[in-house]
Amino acid sequence: MIQRRVIVVLAFVGLLTGVWGSPAHTAADRDKLLSEPGVYGTFAAFGLAEDWAKQDLPTRIAHLTAMKGVVEQHREKIAIDLYLLRGLSDHADILFRIHAAELRDTQKFLVDLQNSLMGRNLKGAGIMNGMAKKANYVPGFPDQVKADLKAASEHGPNPYAIVIPIRKNAEWWALDQEKRAAMMKEHTEAALPYHKTVKRKLYHSSGLDDLDFITYFETSKLEDFHSLILSLERVKEFQYTRRFGHPTLLGTMKSLDELIETLAQ
Amino acid sequence: MIQRRVIVVLAFVGLLTGVWGSPAHTAADRDKLLSEPGVYGTFAAFGLAEDWAKQDLPTRIAHLTAMKGVVEQHREKIAIDLYLLRGLSDHADILFRIHAAELRDTQKFLVDLQNSLMGRNLKGAGIMNGMAKKANYVPGFPDQVKADLKAASEHGPNPYAIVIPIRKNAEWWALDQEKRAAMMKEHTEAALPYHKTVKRKLYHSSGLDDLDFITYFETSKLEDFHSLILSLERVKEFQYTRRFGHPTLLGTMKSLDELIETLAQ
Amino acid sequence: MIQRRVIVVLAFVGLLTGVWGSPAHTAADRDKLLSEPGVYGTFAAFGLAEDWAKQDLPTRIAHLTAMKGVVEQHREKIAIDLYLLRGLSDHADILFRIHAAELRDTQKFLVDLQNSLMGRNLKGAGIMNGMAKKANYVPGFPDQVKADLKAASEHGPNPYAIVIPIRKNAEWWALDQEKRAAMMKEHTEAALPYHKTVKRKLYHSSGLDDLDFITYFETSKLEDFHSLILSLERVKEFQYTRRFGHPTLLGTMKSLDELIETLAQ
Amino acid sequence: MIQRRVIVVLAFVGLLTGVWGSPAHTAADRDKLLSEPGVYGTFAAFGLAEDWAKQDLPTRIAHLTAMKGVVEQHREKIAIDLYLLRGLSDHADILFRIHAAELRDTQKFLVDLQNSLMGRNLKGAGIMNGMAKKANYVPGFPDQVKADLKAASEHGPNPYAIVIPIRKNAEWWALDQEKRAAMMKEHTEAALPYHKTVKRKLYHSSGLDDLDFITYFETSKLEDFHSLILSLERVKEFQYTRRFGHPTLLGTMKSLDELIETLAQ
Amino acid sequence: MIQRRVIVVLAFVGLLTGVWGSPAHTAADRDKLLSEPGVYGTFAAFGLAEDWAKQDLPTRIAHLTAMKGVVEQHREKIAIDLYLLRGLSDHADILFRIHAAELRDTQKFLVDLQNSLMGRNLKGAGIMNGMAKKANYVPGFPDQVKADLKAASEHGPNPYAIVIPIRKNAEWWALDQEKRAAMMKEHTEAALPYHKTVKRKLYHSSGLDDLDFITYFETSKLEDFHSLILSLERVKEFQYTRRFGHPTLLGTMKSLDELIETLAQ
Repeated sequence: MIQRRVIVVLAFVGLLTGVWGSPAHTAADRDKLLSEPGVYGTFAAFGLAEDWAKQDLPTRIAHLTAMKGVVEQHREKIAIDLYLLRGLSDHADILFRIHAAELRDTQKFLVDLQNSLMGRNLKGAGIMNGMAKKANYVPGFPDQVKADLKAASEHGPNPYAIVIPIRKNAEWWALDQEKRAAMMKEHTEAALPYHKTVKRKLYHSSGLDDLDFITYFETSKLEDFHSLILSLERVKEFQYTRRFGHPTLLGTMKSLDELIETLAQ
Repeated sequence: MIQRRVIVVLAFVGLLTGVWGSPAHTAADRDKLLSEPGVYGTFAAFGLAEDWAKQDLPTRIAHLTAMKGVVEQHREKIAIDLYLLRGLSDHADILFRIHAAELRDTQKFLVDLQNSLMGRNLKGAGIMNGMAKKANYVPGFPDQVKADLKAASEHGPNPYAIVIPIRKNAEWWALDQEKRAAMMKEHTEAALPYHKTVKRKLYHSSGLDDLDFITYFETSKLEDFHSLILSLERVKEFQYTRRFGHPTLLGTMKSLDELIETLAQ
Repeated sequence: MIQRRVIVVLAFVGLLTGVWGSPAHTAADRDKLLSEPGVYGTFAAFGLAEDWAKQDLPTRIAHLTAMKGVVEQHREKIAIDLYLLRGLSDHADILFRIHAAELRDTQKFLVDLQNSLMGRNLKGAGIMNGMAKKANYVPGFPDQVKADLKAASEHGPNPYAIVIPIRKNAEWWALDQEKRAAMMKEHTEAALPYHKTVKRKLYHSSGLDDLDFITYFETSKLEDFHSLILSLERVKEFQYTRRFGHPTLLGTMKSLDELIETLAQ
Repeated sequence: MIQRRVIVVLAFVGLLTGVWGSPAHTAADRDKLLSEPGVYGTFAAFGLAEDWAKQDLPTRIAHLTAMKGVVEQHREKIAIDLYLLRGLSDHADILFRIHAAELRDTQKFLVDLQNSLMGRNLKGAGIMNGMAKKANYVPGFPDQVKADLKAASEHGPNPYAIVIPIRKNAEWWALDQEKRAAMMKEHTEAALPYHKTVKRKLYHSSGLDDLDFITYFETSKLEDFHSLILSLERVKEFQYTRRFGHPTLLGTMKSLDELIETLAQ
Repeated sequence: MIQRRVIVVLAFVGLLTGVWGSPAHTAADRDKLLSEPGVYGTFAAFGLAEDWAKQDLPTRIAHLTAMKGVVEQHREKIAIDLYLLRGLSDHADILFRIHAAELRDTQKFLVDLQNSLMGRNLKGAGIMNGMAKKANYVPGFPDQVKADLKAASEHGPNPYAIVIPIRKNAEWWALDQEKRAAMMKEHTEAALPYHKTVKRKLYHSSGLDDLDFITYFETSKLEDFHSLILSLERVKEFQYTRRFGHPTLLGTMKSLDELIETLAQ
């Protein structure tokens, strides 16, 4: 019954119907931001403050409405994806994935979010920054493989999302380019069977964080994802990995309204 | 005397008699969830917030009743086991072991739990996710051994339970399949003498957490369990283990009502 | 003057005279628990909550009286030693060493302690579990040495106590039994000169915690203890030690009443 | 609208126009402090206390005014740069870079800051100390390269700033001077292409902190900075690095008034 | 102006003039404690609780007066030095260095301090224990060098003090005595040029803490200290060091009254 009441109130303030603000704003070119090289990707995870559980419904709604306003305003310029980590990861409760042409735009969004009414409920639990680069498909693959790799992965609504930060060891960087390329070819081949059900995106982080890469996955079939990781642990390149995870973030992708609905309860 | 009063009150609200809700719900097929491959296992540990110790009995009962409601509701779909860690482990006070066909069902339960009245008393202390797979009994064992391995382990009521997360090193994964199988045979042989008194279950975690495996044990004879671990430390496969424990969770298995009674005091 | 007032009040409530409860209870066979194999030893360290320093004397006395009651009640079944760590270790303020035939009895005591009025002042700072085993004196020692090793160590009242957890590396466990025995003989010889002034007790922990051993020492001569550790760092067996301490707990042994008096001030 | 109100109030108290105090003070010779050897550089990072988000605007303004006063007073003697980390780094919200002829002057500033009204909002998140030394340009470079290295790097207003602490391993220090010099030459050559757009400054830390070096970067082109780090990971000297980052601090450079304006919102 | 008011009040309560208590007490033989072997040295670091910044001046003065009383009372028996870490180290705000013939006397002081009114403002940030031993000057040095080493180091008032804990690896302890002595000779030679301006004192910690040594330095010339550490990183013995710092504590030495004055502001 509590749940029904939440939905009524949310509908009243327009949170569920999505009418709030949208017409007035021009959305950033999300597709471009998510596909082009040179774009920065930031993963910002937050825990909910202990007070959150003690606040009454109207207060929660007011704070979530503030969050909604900030997200929608910044979506004019940057792409923002949301994930619910609570219940699957112990590092944080919610995760924002932000794509922006300049990291200062990401910073503005996150500062505005923390300065908003909702900010007092959010405890920073980790920020990772990376940059998308042109995918340098390893040469020498047959055309069919190249076509397969270019085809989009598919999954249903609200897929699972997994973020695994990676740091290579000094030996990796000291290898000559050819040896690294050969190992990356083996890596790509091992991943190929899972391309259809597990979507991957790679971010380069060296210098922007204590990482070399952020690997991001979306899938509706967690078992396939697990098998993919097992395959990748078995190729030679994995032996040059100094850090794999720590943390591994596992959650479910949510629309802004779905996430708000979950948090309001 | 306080203890007697607690029991009276608990009986009054039906917490001890178990009448609450059960008739209306259809339980998940617990046996299937605990035995079949492809099922996800999640270990969620919580500490009790500092405020908990300061709350009066009616408040505690109200919050525990809320917890009971959430657990029973979700037991329609998922299997939930409970453990008291307090007094034996310093990492957390209580532990939930959850088996579900989909991790999103586990997430729903844990989100509902944290959104419930009891949620404000629970501080997340760690979540580990894994997946049950078909036990690939190492070939080459005599029939008697195979039969022994298939026989159920036995223990009395409220056994001790131990959870040990494991991460293998890169060398392990780089070994060819045969060598790994030979070492797993040695591992299984070393464990055989303890099969009757120590129940084991294995979860595969690669990619779902910063782990490769979660090993779970139940026993009424802790000394046998200790001897089992000593035996496993001596086989060759142990030298490929990068992380063993950290944390090791040790507690006692409790029914929902038993756990509530302990926490209410 | 404050100190005098404390003593008066403590005497009034019978805390210092020890009349509280003792006649009615039958003490556990402490000597047996501390000397026999198969007994479990648990080290539970607690910090005092920040609020403790702000409470007035009557409140402190009330809470300490509650603690005294819980300790005395459980002493019927288990052996409980107390230590003051504050001022010598930064990991915790007080330490309980508990010996019990079953770890579930230890758990009951610690749960009761945390559920008592005193519980709200105690912040868990670490629990380590181990098991006493028959001391397998290395064969081949001359009779005089064996006799020396069996003789009890001596120290004055309120000795220093030191707890050092130990984890051996995988290479250690992979050694054959003979090589390990030879190294343990060297280890025992190195410790011999300190046997008279430094009392030692060993607990086996594999699987019960993230440890292999808990080593416990009592001495009135800290300098001898320091020399003993230096000697042990120099024998070959030490090179197979992966973790030595972390934490090292150093404190002074106190009777229940002495500890209460110190905390009441 | 809230933002506009903030600006009005800030202007009223003179925070934005910068009239406060400046005429009466003689600034430290900032250029000298930032360029000469023997000067100490300290990086002090702070998080904002959780209460900060809950304070009303006048309180925030009062506290920020106090901070402004302390910074301006100490700028008579030491050079103070300010950075906004929030939204890009998870380790802290703001960062002070302080250059002083004596570390005790830096200590006085930071103690005054923490003793000021603003102090109660600042949670220490890390301090790193180092010393500037005469840049010992590796001999053997052609004149043109030497000239290039001496030319100032350029960037626009409010550049990104990155701080990466470094610890070399024992092998590095055990190398003879010639081998180290040869590797540093390779290091310098790898960095050369990025000299124009990425400004670097090196601080020597051995003994002043758990570090050997603090490397500091300013740039308007983060992509160039990322490429620079990738280049430096590939030279031989990188294999003697035991710690690189942990934390890596990434933020944007702000004037005192800009930072105050951001925090006031 | 606030600062002036503090000084007036402090003078009034006798904090600055030092008349409080001194005549009535007999000081411990400080010189003996600081120079003789067999004496225990303890480094106890504390942070100031967050509440401290919010208390009014009279409350602060009352609490600091309590601290002054405890320190002066125990100075009859033990030697207590004080340091301000705030602003230079992120691990703590103040540091006590205590020399005592028995660690139980140190414990009594620190327990009294935490039980005093000031105790509620102090958050334990680390305790390290060690023991002074007879300096075994490496044989074979020319007489002039021996004389130089025995000469006292000099520095001005309120010097910088640095504390660096050290743990050697197992290989170090496994070396035969001669090899260790030869390396220590090289170590001592490397340190010689800095003997005049950097005062050193060594404490042996094995078993008393998770350390083997605590090295303590005092200097007015930080640059010399930095050069000394660089020299020590280059000798062979440094390669047997498993932990160097973590934490490195850097602060300034203060008299009791100076420290109180700084904290009162």
